[in-house]
Amino acid sequence: MTQDLLDRRARLMGPNVPTFYETPVHIVRGQGVRLWDADGKAYIDCYNNVPHVGHCHPRVVAAIAQQSAELNTHTRYLHDGVLTYIERLTARLGHGLSQAIMVCTGSEANDIALRMAQAVTGKTGIIATDNTYHGNTTATSVLSTRRPPIGGYPPHVRLVPAPESLGTDGATPMQKAQDFANHVARAIAELETSGFGFSGLMLCPYFANEGFPVQSPGFLDPTVALVRAAGGLLLADEVQPGFGRMGTHFWGHEWLGFAPDVVTVGKPMANGYPVAAVLARPDVMAAFRGAFGYFNTFGGNPVAAAAALATLDVIDDEGLMENARVVGDYMQQRLSALRHPLLVDTRGHGFFMGAEFVQSDGKTPATDFTIAVVEAMVARGVLLNRIGRHGNTLKMRPPMPFAREDADIVVDALIDALAHTPIMKSA
Amino acid sequence: MTQDLLDRRARLMGPNVPTFYETPVHIVRGQGVRLWDADGKAYIDCYNNVPHVGHCHPRVVAAIAQQSAELNTHTRYLHDGVLTYIERLTARLGHGLSQAIMVCTGSEANDIALRMAQAVTGKTGIIATDNTYHGNTTATSVLSTRRPPIGGYPPHVRLVPAPESLGTDGATPMQKAQDFANHVARAIAELETSGFGFSGLMLCPYFANEGFPVQSPGFLDPTVALVRAAGGLLLADEVQPGFGRMGTHFWGHEWLGFAPDVVTVGKPMANGYPVAAVLARPDVMAAFRGAFGYFNTFGGNPVAAAAALATLDVIDDEGLMENARVVGDYMQQRLSALRHPLLVDTRGHGFFMGAEFVQSDGKTPATDFTIAVVEAMVARGVLLNRIGRHGNTLKMRPPMPFAREDADIVVDALIDALAHTPIMKSA
Repeated sequence: MTQDLLDRRARLMGPNVPTFYETPVHIVRGQGVRLWDADGKAYIDCYNNVPHVGHCHPRVVAAIAQQSAELNTHTRYLHDGVLTYIERLTARLGHGLSQAIMVCTGSEANDIALRMAQAVTGKTGIIATDNTYHGNTTATSVLSTRRPPIGGYPPHVRLVPAPESLGTDGATPMQKAQDFANHVARAIAELETSGFGFSGLMLCPYFANEGFPVQSPGFLDPTVALVRAAGGLLLADEVQPGFGRMGTHFWGHEWLGFAPDVVTVGKPMANGYPVAAVLARPDVMAAFRGAFGYFNTFGGNPVAAAAALATLDVIDDEGLMENARVVGDYMQQRLSALRHPLLVDTRGHGFFMGAEFVQSDGKTPATDFTIAVVEAMVARGVLLNRIGRHGNTLKMRPPMPFAREDADIVVDALIDALAHTPIMKSA
Repeated sequence: MTQDLLDRRARLMGPNVPTFYETPVHIVRGQGVRLWDADGKAYIDCYNNVPHVGHCHPRVVAAIAQQSAELNTHTRYLHDGVLTYIERLTARLGHGLSQAIMVCTGSEANDIALRMAQAVTGKTGIIATDNTYHGNTTATSVLSTRRPPIGGYPPHVRLVPAPESLGTDGATPMQKAQDFANHVARAIAELETSGFGFSGLMLCPYFANEGFPVQSPGFLDPTVALVRAAGGLLLADEVQPGFGRMGTHFWGHEWLGFAPDVVTVGKPMANGYPVAAVLARPDVMAAFRGAFGYFNTFGGNPVAAAAALATLDVIDDEGLMENARVVGDYMQQRLSALRHPLLVDTRGHGFFMGAEFVQSDGKTPATDFTIAVVEAMVARGVLLNRIGRHGNTLKMRPPMPFAREDADIVVDALIDALAHTPIMKSA
């Protein structure tokens, strides 16, 4: 069956279409933090952030079903749903971020955010880190370094070295913060010299794709001062840390402690219904709306609004942010008690946790070993994955109703997997 | 109530957010080709192509509800739904277009199509018409001319004059076709001289946003020969004509009579669930997948696949393409019998129809008059809109279950609206 599906994928979707795991799983059902494959094997989901309030949450499913049966048009007609949702969502934001554009994907949201920075500044130069991902559109994908675009990297993009969690020779948090700011300062200067000018800095406030190396609020302070002085915008990609995942804070930028000009949200927003948004101050929104015509057919349609509103309600009514704090703390304590020759760091915040492995020399990334651990966990019925520049950090990012008992199951499985995964020479 | 919603929109969404009609309608319920506003007033929908098989079609609603309750993940796990859908959809296509990337919006699809042309040719120059729309991402929006982007129009884009339906001084269809091809030839030469090179031509095979001026299959033949000779790709944006709307053909390119290298689909694909796709030959797909990393979180998820599959089933089971042919023909006959001093042309194919108005001089677009007719139709409970370079053509593009009786209601309302709309001096 799996081979048949893989053959059909190759025939129908072409080569290089990503799957998870060496033997991809064939999932057929989900509920809460559990998934089941076609053979009836159960998995605990310690990875997926899209089913934010749990797979197939009945309230979100009901909202989608009910609104789909009643009306699904677009925002060129007036409808209460999208307005109520924007009111509810912007009430969670400070810093004057009171307006929204509703779209369908985080990529579309970030694609707009880049243009908001252009509209405000009249300039096009943009800065991101060199180990990030902000989307799959032409404009956002050039912020990733996986492959050079046809025609080469566009000269209006400057990538600065992503912060590292290890190997910084005992630098203090303040030194790391200044080091990052120095790279940003150099990039701003280059953009200004080049004639593109500096429009903004786009980053994930938790540096999620970078392997969440930054664990100190205040890290961005010197950078923020620089960006402000240069007249650029701070574009916070909250697709991963947003909606309470941090446990202590509803947003990553609240935790990191800075005031973004634009916030983008996506994946977890409607528990899997394709919806995303750009949140901005009225002055930024007006600049964008004055400079660019923009309409999104599906964005903010009545079903999208209903699904997103139900998701927000469940986060509140089930106390899921507090759950991420309490269970996240508990799981991180258990992770920090793990001992293994290649395990050099466990870290995380709320329901975004990692465990980093390096070879016995104490510095070379143990990527192959980490791959083997992921596979061993899948075999044990736990879905998680890897992250970071070298893919040597386990990425644990469960749906928000993840319970203390689920944390125990995952950590116990990890203890067992670590005990049974051979330490290869190449690790 | 309407004013309250408008105030909230301005507060929450900012300025320049498009609505339809001088007094925007507040729609709260839909079923089939009928919509109802908050006051209980019924409208016949003669405009929306997203609810392709009718607003809130029970089979599509049931498919969404059922799959949402069972599983909604992403294509990094194996799932039958997306494969079955791609099999079913590509079976409708010739020309070796057997593979698909599933995304969420037509904009995302066209953004990929542009990169497919780049990947195949190694070049970036692209051609479109000067009165078109292929999406709202940074890369696709520069194919529209509404407003210059920050930093100016990118030099790798060349826009050729859109075909016109009127004012071509009695040119034969073959002359018009050659004229268009000559513009494309000039644009190809410019791109090759400029160093960008020529990657492809993107167009809607029905020239929908151009006001569907081309009514002659074969129009594109000389252009196709040129594009092939220059090694470029033909990118067919089927977001509007696709899925049987033409009545006689499932796709616009089938009707126009050419073999595209890439086809993009969107709006009507899943009756309002946010899903879209790029369809290509395996060689084109392999080039894209080799040159660009691409993954779309929501694209082709199990619910999207279920909604799209149900929509395709309904098109077949309810004979909606044939309905578009028969009722479309009938409505066009009735439209062609209309007489009004400013009405100079009615045209259309299947369920995509227009009526063009010019001032008494026989050539100046009667834009204001057309606006007044649209408003008069809304007052009479018919939703339609305007299209074309000067917005002086009524655009009638109803959901596919539109019946002969619905056509009569619309045409009778139009007769009444024309009789009661004053012919202003500025028209």
